[in-house]
Amino acid sequence: MGQTNGQTKRVYAFGEAVNENATDVSVTEGNKDMKYQLGGKGANLAEMANMGLPVPPGYTITCQACMEYYESEPPAFPVGLDEEIAVYTADLEKKMGKKLGDADDPLLVSVRSGSPFSMPGMMDTVLNLGLNDESVQGIIAQTGNERFAWDSYRRFIQMFSRVVLDIEGDAFEEALTHMKEARGVKNDTDLSAEDLKELVSEFKDIVSREVSPEDYPALVVDGVVAFPQDVNEQLRLSIEAVFKSWNNRRAIDYRRMEGIADDLGTAVNVQAMVFGNKGDTSATGVGFTRNPADGTNEYYGDYLTNAQGEDVVAGIRITEPIAELKRQPGLEKAGEELDGVFATLEKAYRDMCDIEFTIEQGKLWMLQTRVGKRTAAAALKIAVDFVNEGTITKEEALLRINPMALDQLLHPQFDPAKKYDVCAQGLNASPGAAVGRCVFSADDAEAAAKAGEKVVLVRWETTPDDLHGMVAAQGILTSHGGKTSHAAVVARGMGKPCVCGVAELKIDARAKRAIIKDTDIVLDDQTIISIDGTTGTVVCGKADLIEPEVSGDFNTILDWADEFRVLGVRANADSPEDATLARNFGAEGIGLTRTEHMFLGERKDIIQDFILAGEDKEARLVALDQLLDTQVADYLGIFEAMDGLPVTVRLLDPPLHEFLDSPRELEIEITKEELTGGASVEKLEKKKKLLALIDSMSEMNPMLGLRGCRLGIMFPELYSMQVRAITRAACALKKQGKDPRPEVMIPLVSCKSELTTLRAESEKTIAEVMDEEGVVVDIKIGTMIELPRAAIVADKIAQAADFFSFGTNDLTQTAFGFSRDDIESKFLPCYLERKILPSNPFETLDDGVARIIAIGCERGRSTNPGIKLGICGEHGGDPASIAKCHRIGLTYVSCSPYRVPVARLAAAHAALNG
Amino acid sequence: MGQTNGQTKRVYAFGEAVNENATDVSVTEGNKDMKYQLGGKGANLAEMANMGLPVPPGYTITCQACMEYYESEPPAFPVGLDEEIAVYTADLEKKMGKKLGDADDPLLVSVRSGSPFSMPGMMDTVLNLGLNDESVQGIIAQTGNERFAWDSYRRFIQMFSRVVLDIEGDAFEEALTHMKEARGVKNDTDLSAEDLKELVSEFKDIVSREVSPEDYPALVVDGVVAFPQDVNEQLRLSIEAVFKSWNNRRAIDYRRMEGIADDLGTAVNVQAMVFGNKGDTSATGVGFTRNPADGTNEYYGDYLTNAQGEDVVAGIRITEPIAELKRQPGLEKAGEELDGVFATLEKAYRDMCDIEFTIEQGKLWMLQTRVGKRTAAAALKIAVDFVNEGTITKEEALLRINPMALDQLLHPQFDPAKKYDVCAQGLNASPGAAVGRCVFSADDAEAAAKAGEKVVLVRWETTPDDLHGMVAAQGILTSHGGKTSHAAVVARGMGKPCVCGVAELKIDARAKRAIIKDTDIVLDDQTIISIDGTTGTVVCGKADLIEPEVSGDFNTILDWADEFRVLGVRANADSPEDATLARNFGAEGIGLTRTEHMFLGERKDIIQDFILAGEDKEARLVALDQLLDTQVADYLGIFEAMDGLPVTVRLLDPPLHEFLDSPRELEIEITKEELTGGASVEKLEKKKKLLALIDSMSEMNPMLGLRGCRLGIMFPELYSMQVRAITRAACALKKQGKDPRPEVMIPLVSCKSELTTLRAESEKTIAEVMDEEGVVVDIKIGTMIELPRAAIVADKIAQAADFFSFGTNDLTQTAFGFSRDDIESKFLPCYLERKILPSNPFETLDDGVARIIAIGCERGRSTNPGIKLGICGEHGGDPASIAKCHRIGLTYVSCSPYRVPVARLAAAHAALNG
Repeated sequence: MGQTNGQTKRVYAFGEAVNENATDVSVTEGNKDMKYQLGGKGANLAEMANMGLPVPPGYTITCQACMEYYESEPPAFPVGLDEEIAVYTADLEKKMGKKLGDADDPLLVSVRSGSPFSMPGMMDTVLNLGLNDESVQGIIAQTGNERFAWDSYRRFIQMFSRVVLDIEGDAFEEALTHMKEARGVKNDTDLSAEDLKELVSEFKDIVSREVSPEDYPALVVDGVVAFPQDVNEQLRLSIEAVFKSWNNRRAIDYRRMEGIADDLGTAVNVQAMVFGNKGDTSATGVGFTRNPADGTNEYYGDYLTNAQGEDVVAGIRITEPIAELKRQPGLEKAGEELDGVFATLEKAYRDMCDIEFTIEQGKLWMLQTRVGKRTAAAALKIAVDFVNEGTITKEEALLRINPMALDQLLHPQFDPAKKYDVCAQGLNASPGAAVGRCVFSADDAEAAAKAGEKVVLVRWETTPDDLHGMVAAQGILTSHGGKTSHAAVVARGMGKPCVCGVAELKIDARAKRAIIKDTDIVLDDQTIISIDGTTGTVVCGKADLIEPEVSGDFNTILDWADEFRVLGVRANADSPEDATLARNFGAEGIGLTRTEHMFLGERKDIIQDFILAGEDKEARLVALDQLLDTQVADYLGIFEAMDGLPVTVRLLDPPLHEFLDSPRELEIEITKEELTGGASVEKLEKKKKLLALIDSMSEMNPMLGLRGCRLGIMFPELYSMQVRAITRAACALKKQGKDPRPEVMIPLVSCKSELTTLRAESEKTIAEVMDEEGVVVDIKIGTMIELPRAAIVADKIAQAADFFSFGTNDLTQTAFGFSRDDIESKFLPCYLERKILPSNPFETLDDGVARIIAIGCERGRSTNPGIKLGICGEHGGDPASIAKCHRIGLTYVSCSPYRVPVARLAAAHAALNG
Repeated sequence: MGQTNGQTKRVYAFGEAVNENATDVSVTEGNKDMKYQLGGKGANLAEMANMGLPVPPGYTITCQACMEYYESEPPAFPVGLDEEIAVYTADLEKKMGKKLGDADDPLLVSVRSGSPFSMPGMMDTVLNLGLNDESVQGIIAQTGNERFAWDSYRRFIQMFSRVVLDIEGDAFEEALTHMKEARGVKNDTDLSAEDLKELVSEFKDIVSREVSPEDYPALVVDGVVAFPQDVNEQLRLSIEAVFKSWNNRRAIDYRRMEGIADDLGTAVNVQAMVFGNKGDTSATGVGFTRNPADGTNEYYGDYLTNAQGEDVVAGIRITEPIAELKRQPGLEKAGEELDGVFATLEKAYRDMCDIEFTIEQGKLWMLQTRVGKRTAAAALKIAVDFVNEGTITKEEALLRINPMALDQLLHPQFDPAKKYDVCAQGLNASPGAAVGRCVFSADDAEAAAKAGEKVVLVRWETTPDDLHGMVAAQGILTSHGGKTSHAAVVARGMGKPCVCGVAELKIDARAKRAIIKDTDIVLDDQTIISIDGTTGTVVCGKADLIEPEVSGDFNTILDWADEFRVLGVRANADSPEDATLARNFGAEGIGLTRTEHMFLGERKDIIQDFILAGEDKEARLVALDQLLDTQVADYLGIFEAMDGLPVTVRLLDPPLHEFLDSPRELEIEITKEELTGGASVEKLEKKKKLLALIDSMSEMNPMLGLRGCRLGIMFPELYSMQVRAITRAACALKKQGKDPRPEVMIPLVSCKSELTTLRAESEKTIAEVMDEEGVVVDIKIGTMIELPRAAIVADKIAQAADFFSFGTNDLTQTAFGFSRDDIESKFLPCYLERKILPSNPFETLDDGVARIIAIGCERGRSTNPGIKLGICGEHGGDPASIAKCHRIGLTYVSCSPYRVPVARLAAAHAALNG
């Protein structure tokens, strides 16, 4: 049907006439590609109608009409919409041969939301619309089923009141329960027609009692709100309620969580009702064309006889598997027909579909279909099977799998078949589940682990000092810090479950206990807890875990991904174990080996000696000599694990005072000892000297202070020791016939001369060691580009670099002027809430930062066309960021070992999406 | 003369033959434009020879030869240089009709350094070269003046030993003093020929005693070092010593201070000696073609009869003004001739020149000329006079004035209305007044300055070794030396007050005290003194200083500058006083009013209440209400002072916890009170709560934390209060018929949405206030671009901004990842020392940061072509940075009030230099 008055077309019809005598009626006007106009549901209803599947006729009001509704202040239907609805309602009445509100043979309709992206249960629906005191008699006349008629009417009043009039459901449920008690029956179905009629009357009283006349002046009769008897008023109010539900709280939250745009709007589907509750030859159900849990190629679903859709969803009655349909008298034919529908849909959609259907007195009606949701494991199997069946191409198969789903498959999970006592919810910072006894310090975690005990480390937030405890624990739980906090980043690197930022958790680490605010739950060092880092859930007690199993499909998909991707994928790994893990996941090298962790544990004392030696170069060299051998061993293990593949080792980066005691704590210790005489004069003097030294090293903004290559400039012997160790390790392997490929990475370079200076010193050391060892190894030297100035002058820096690795964490910090340590707990939540930023720039590469990287690449290549360009920030494992890296034209991304599969697939997506 | 063997020509001759019979001799081969080859001295000697002025002949070894010398390892004369020197020496001998080392009529030469840029006193000179035991007899034979011959010889040994053999001068001075005591005479001139001959012998013994044979094997005779009798060895060693002096410590320091490149090298001038110490018709002197102190058009200078140049510089004897020459018998003719020389030089150089001359037995010889150094005031007057005389254009006049020199003119003076206890009078060597504690060594001066203390450096005379102390001191006071002494020349260059030649001042530097002769005044290292370098006055105690008043020339030059400059010049001012000052200096508006200073003093308590109110919005508003009225008054004063000109007010920028107590100090206080029971339980609890609150606000990297517009987003009422105050102040002035032009500047924006959010809120407040007041004021709203991301996405941000002001301090911090609070005391000195950075990027705009600004401008203009673009960092007052701002195409720079004249002139330079 054409537009009304030449305006934008806002309503689209679907479905054939049921009334065979109807003339001059609409045909289906949409199809499955119109989801941005008709929403997913509307587009798919039109598509099914086009395929000739049995779809109850109706029409869809577009998403654009919904957004037009919001453009007015206050929101209002756009001009002409009422008239267009009237035209299509009349058309629908013709198709059905029935009229809305008719006293003899009334048309009943459903009014359902349907946005371009599935938002299950987030928006509103009204069923059985068209019933009033007159038309209920028409239903009785037509069906001869008085009980059905009154039941439908009371359901309609209840649903309309909740959805349109905003009345809490409790009052209706109470009245229903009261009625069942009064009649001495258990189920709704045991109530008689007379009972239900009485309920209708009571429900109408509830409406008059609960709704304020000021809110709905149009519905006021004799001074009180009356449930509307005008069916067009019912329809109009219901359509508006669906429009409004686009912006209800839970829909907004859901969109934010799923990253769905707010300006899409929802369509409204007005469709002739069919009834699954018209007796034992009626039924309603949902199904999938394949098993959505594991991907098995079988029809899958459940139905309820004599019920409406809401009963299935509510889970009140026990459903039957759809295979039973064909064995149930009166439903057999519909069951057979359903098999055909499944086959037709899968062929048309070339994917697993889910459906909703209703059988009304033996006749099958399709109410919904869409591409079905599935578990990660099912997604892999279905995609591989479709390719093997020749239905889809490898490219399509790859694009159907969300890269993040792969991560899920690599970690244990809470058994989804079980229910748990969730005691708190935090951020899903590192995937996987863990069970263990609570410990409140890294040392306790280590001690327990040594004793063979499983523990969960509970901390306010972790610091580098907690590292040994994190290694020892099964999982990490923190009350502060976001998804890019220390705990989160390190846990992800380790592949360890982590739940962060559980604000309700009030920890008293010294007392070894924590309480959960507003509850009486106390965690102490005897409490067993379970955490699920995939969901952010914290459970008191021991949860049952299921171990991950990676199927052959997993590797098939990744092999296909490798065929298409252009970006290389490396891993960030600081130990031989991590390197091996990463290699097994398909990493093509190591993009970042951080060396700061190698200076912790028992070596911390040595690096402290180094730092505190100050001007005494002799003492500094003694300390470094002690570190040299251990460093050689560190690198040996990693190079061996990555034999034949490049390993980028970043020279020491963090501010040196990170290795020192806190001056504040030290001063308090001194103050106490002075007042209590708890220490000898000499000891006090020594501590005071230490304090003065530490104070002299402390910085206002350590992130912008003496760190990175500045350490290498100020303390040449430090970097020289590291380069010596790298070269020695490489030479040793080379002598064993191995193929070590070390790359020395100079961090935090801001100008070319820093790099040329340190490069010259490194080359000198490398040459010296190779001379000593009598072996030649090719060692590349490059730099991190992690400061805006470095990207801007990349043309100059590239002249002295074999490679660039964009350190997107620091680059994000300096480009925005955001200290990651500070902003996540301070203003970032507010920025996201108020949409000042679209996402956390430390999780997904920001577009402005991406522009800086693009400038760095372009200028770098302008003077050094063959330069290798990678990134090694947290962003290297984030699919959205990987897509940006592909577009910029980087050589590779580097991410934590468990993210390597994610990155391989995301890189393929990026290449396929062009 | 041609090159030797087709090699690069390394030696250039100058000067005509003195021996009229000389044939086949060289002509002058250089000119004044060859200073990069011949050095300033060499080029100007050649130029004077070309003009026909009386220049003793000689030759110049090029700067390039010096740099070639350094290319060898160890440094060595380039191949062929020895031969080329021999050729030119022979040529010089022909011209003079004398031979080096000749026993009958020996040629004596001077060997002097001369780099492309003047480095007064930094490098070495050897005079009287060519004397040995034989040739001294030749001098006696030729002059009949035995005393002169032996005096020349002993001077030569002394100078050669210090310069070439690196012997401390003390041993020679002691021997000389001892001889004078033994003879009972006071002056050197009172010693007889015999005395001097004996001294020569003693001096040679000193050489043998002090020089190690290992260091000079070529000079060893009978196992000890002998003063060389081979004149060619003398010459070669002296030339090499001059080469070496290019890289002595003080030359390197001087170059660093003056920004002179290290790879220029010094030329070596070998020139026939003429003698000002051949009796009463001989003299030596220095002069200027105009008065270098105030610019008066008069011949200016001093001379000493019967003396060598070193005597004038040393300031041992009192000089006569050159006007006296024409009145002194035997010197009259030379005096007349000198007038002609002055006129010739000024005409040729079109500028004020300084000269060194010697009169040998009535004949004038020119030894040096160059464009002369002058005080800032003189520079202005001379430039204006030259324009008025029609000698140079306005453009040339402007380009001749170093913008930083203007700063000097703005230095304070003693208040002439007050009376002072003048304790001594010296020479007014460098203008300006200073007050400080007396220090008696350069090291003490530096130490005190580092501790933030103001000092006056008191010295017998300064040497290049005192340079760091001169930099550190407020002013310099010497007891010896004239207006052309080291202290005077260097202090004028630095724009530092200096009083010279206070003869009554008797200094005992080791004892750190001085007495003023014939008084009981003692200065020690606790004494405060005041000096006025404009008048030469020394005052005991602290004098009141007054701000300077500038001459008409000052404004003439700046008016001319305004004719040529393209950049606007605004000032940074936070108070009505500063605004008025800036306006008087020609500021065209205020580019930055910081509001954080307005929250200090008694208002700090209120802002603390605001911060500590936390979530309690009510309490926050109460605190802000208290600030509102005071803020209105703040802005009123500034807008009034800048009536009709734009005033950019930056909303509050610093981290809030800057207004709070130090948590460390607070915790120590609490610890003490807990241990000593020094406070009640309630008080302690309150303090602990405060501590927890402050701790919760503290940040790891406050520079990158909750500050700038993030405050405005988190605490909208704060910015709203400020915008309200700005608008109220503007409305009040408008009602008085004034023309306030406020501009609201939102700091630290990183993305467009921050600006659009805060702009909308500001516009709402502005509209509200204008409604209340019934006045309309045009208030522009713009932003700081001080984060790299902001510059990179300037195309987006510009859509919401009326202006950008590049905050180059923060931009430098974030572009480099340098915290200014930290790096200046940590690694920056090392970076500058090792030339990893060419200059402090917080002083002179870095080229990488300039590239970021250029991107910001280009992208900003791409979406908002009319946008105003300024900078308001420290760089706005730095001439080198201003040149970069001009090239980038900014609209204006903004700087501190005193720098406004500097910026106006620097902007004109930038425009003229294109």
